[in-house]
Amino acid sequence: MDHESIELLSAVEDHHGGVVLNVEHPMDPLLFSSSLEASISNWSQQGKKGIWINLPIQHSNLVDSAVKAGFRYHHAEPDYLMLVRWMPDSPDTIPANASHRVGVGAFVVNNKKQVLVVQETSGKFKGTGVWKMPTGVVNEGEDICEAAIREVKEETGVDTKFVEVLAFRQSHKSFFQKSDIFFVCMLQPQSFDIQSQASEIVEAQWIPVEDYAAQPFVQENELFDFITKICISKLDGNYTGFSNVHTRTSSGKSTYLYFNNRDASHILASEHEQA
Amino acid sequence: MDHESIELLSAVEDHHGGVVLNVEHPMDPLLFSSSLEASISNWSQQGKKGIWINLPIQHSNLVDSAVKAGFRYHHAEPDYLMLVRWMPDSPDTIPANASHRVGVGAFVVNNKKQVLVVQETSGKFKGTGVWKMPTGVVNEGEDICEAAIREVKEETGVDTKFVEVLAFRQSHKSFFQKSDIFFVCMLQPQSFDIQSQASEIVEAQWIPVEDYAAQPFVQENELFDFITKICISKLDGNYTGFSNVHTRTSSGKSTYLYFNNRDASHILASEHEQA
Repeated sequence: MDHESIELLSAVEDHHGGVVLNVEHPMDPLLFSSSLEASISNWSQQGKKGIWINLPIQHSNLVDSAVKAGFRYHHAEPDYLMLVRWMPDSPDTIPANASHRVGVGAFVVNNKKQVLVVQETSGKFKGTGVWKMPTGVVNEGEDICEAAIREVKEETGVDTKFVEVLAFRQSHKSFFQKSDIFFVCMLQPQSFDIQSQASEIVEAQWIPVEDYAAQPFVQENELFDFITKICISKLDGNYTGFSNVHTRTSSGKSTYLYFNNRDASHILASEHEQA
Repeated sequence: MDHESIELLSAVEDHHGGVVLNVEHPMDPLLFSSSLEASISNWSQQGKKGIWINLPIQHSNLVDSAVKAGFRYHHAEPDYLMLVRWMPDSPDTIPANASHRVGVGAFVVNNKKQVLVVQETSGKFKGTGVWKMPTGVVNEGEDICEAAIREVKEETGVDTKFVEVLAFRQSHKSFFQKSDIFFVCMLQPQSFDIQSQASEIVEAQWIPVEDYAAQPFVQENELFDFITKICISKLDGNYTGFSNVHTRTSSGKSTYLYFNNRDASHILASEHEQA
């Protein structure tokens, strides 16, 4: 094929001296290969650094061509695969892929000192009679505080208000090679009627905190026992976790900062006086 | 091709009623397609739930066959693509992909109340004269506390001991659709000579904490200013963040729990008495 006749692929510039090629239409793999090759030499002449290919799953017949053209995988979601190639001789500054899944557990107690607990239809506690806190996975783009409120609502029907992150743990190889951060959150109930909608929940109820803490699955596990004691200490007013304040990053993005608000309350107060 | 003559693909069972097919050898895509089809009907008869295909990048010519056989992408790393297909009619319980990148910033102060700061060769503060804390990305499988120590060592040559997470913030769409959690950590220096090895660092030095805090990039940013005040409050003994304790999950995996150790010290003490 004559190089002159090959159409270059159109890509958009990113903010880091590279380009992103969004493949939007079906292409013949051989044609894609030659267009990609010509485009690469064009981008190289322009001094482009990272070249990204966003390849929707319906164009999976083009993956092999991209790999043969020197691209490696960067990340994938159910509906697309992102590939990347670093062009210059300088060290590769391609950002790392997401490495962690984030989970939340919700400690919700009413004014009768009853804790909101659930039994799950699957998982390691299935059929064991164990009553556990509502837990779940934080979605991409979701705030930790919002995820805790959502999980409680889905699993029990109870409306809550976020209070604090009481503690968190990080563990590794929780699925394939990925790591996991789990935030134990305290939430305040705003309603009390239980109505579970989640398919993974068998039953939900309010039980006395002491009954929750007395379960063998809590007492016989160092970590669960310790977390439960932190929760009870919080109930008794003897513990401060990290509460959240809404703020903005330097680029103006909305973000939550989590910190010890009891110790830092004088700082926040002085910030607000200045403002 | 006669169905009888098709070789079934060998896969290993996982702990969730599914199987993982690790593609280890090159295969002809057409042969792979027919073997995969026969294997799928075999797994279906066996009542298998999630079918995973771990496809190394050197076998990228098989991606299209897997997608055509009803698989979707689950995640990808530079050297492999993981695909999955949920077999039963029951709701899909395939675990979510990693959604977050995790970063650390290190607040390191010597006994002259000087803070360890760096200037970077790239990024938004390049060439601005701004002195910032060492920061970096937590690797897959790496503990937050270890990552903070490693980044300080790489960027400045200084050895440190982890003290506490002082605060953390979560932000969204930090790269493509992925979210980001950034932990501000306090570390105690164990050595003081500066020797930067990292290519991304121009210079590193110890500067008075007041000089760090007085920089316009700190003062003019609500978030940076607030974090800096928390750090100074910690230095003055008026703030408690989350320190870490090593423990084990219920499945026996090593894990760190981060919590307010000042408020919970009596709990830990009583746990150790019992032990």
